[in-house]
Amino acid sequence: MRAHQLVEPFPFVGMDDDGREAARRMADEHRPGLIVLDEAGRPHAVLPGSQVLHFLIPGYVHEDPALARALPESASDEMVAKLARIPVRELLARHSERTELPVVDGDATTLEIAALMARSHSPLVAVVSDGACVGAITVSRLLRHLLGTQEVQA
Amino acid sequence: MRAHQLVEPFPFVGMDDDGREAARRMADEHRPGLIVLDEAGRPHAVLPGSQVLHFLIPGYVHEDPALARALPESASDEMVAKLARIPVRELLARHSERTELPVVDGDATTLEIAALMARSHSPLVAVVSDGACVGAITVSRLLRHLLGTQEVQA
Repeated sequence: MRAHQLVEPFPFVGMDDDGREAARRMADEHRPGLIVLDEAGRPHAVLPGSQVLHFLIPGYVHEDPALARALPESASDEMVAKLARIPVRELLARHSERTELPVVDGDATTLEIAALMARSHSPLVAVVSDGACVGAITVSRLLRHLLGTQEVQA
Repeated sequence: MRAHQLVEPFPFVGMDDDGREAARRMADEHRPGLIVLDEAGRPHAVLPGSQVLHFLIPGYVHEDPALARALPESASDEMVAKLARIPVRELLARHSERTELPVVDGDATTLEIAALMARSHSPLVAVVSDGACVGAITVSRLLRHLLGTQEVQA
């Protein structure tokens, strides 16, 4: 089994896409993050949902988390409104711990994929074919394959 | 909106549960990880799928990832068979970078939850009520709430 046989669609956004649209896609598609592509369509990074929240949270709450409790629910509207003026690139740049996105070629084997996910502590790898991102393989997809294979032979 | 209104079911396992069963649940429920509870039913940690893979991969592949390509597909059966004899506790203990699981009380506000997720770079928080884990809130669930609220008022 090779990466091109395991790959599944995964939502991605461009560096200049709207931050609020990116957050909306995570919300609607029940994803913990999105793949960010560079101008050439190659996988550049993961934008985790927690990073979007990091951008939304006011600085004084980062400094004193207890202040979050004092904020009214309506404060979140202002926070979310900030996103509409921000490209995805800015969300990534403001994050001090950039989340690396492991990438494999379409002909990578399952064990190569597993080793890479393990090494990078990543829940997914992007799959590239002819230089373009064609989707991703999640850890649950890979486990279904690995466990399924064993059951057939048991 | 409070945590007890946003909480959703999330698969969890006990420390002494079978490692292979845990992997099977991640696979079948399309989850990148599971919540691990301690003996008292309190959230103890997250077991990420990548950590299960880390356990499966032979040591010599960790040392030289290029060797993964040389392994036949059938090698994964032996790797997965190892899991059946291993309790979840061992999978956690063998991981050098324990993944902390942020926890909130049922009456935490959305902004408290958002600040905690942002601070801990976590895609989910466990929700505890009367000392027991009652489920989790994922970042996509929280974003649906935050973005939805804004749309209603726009």
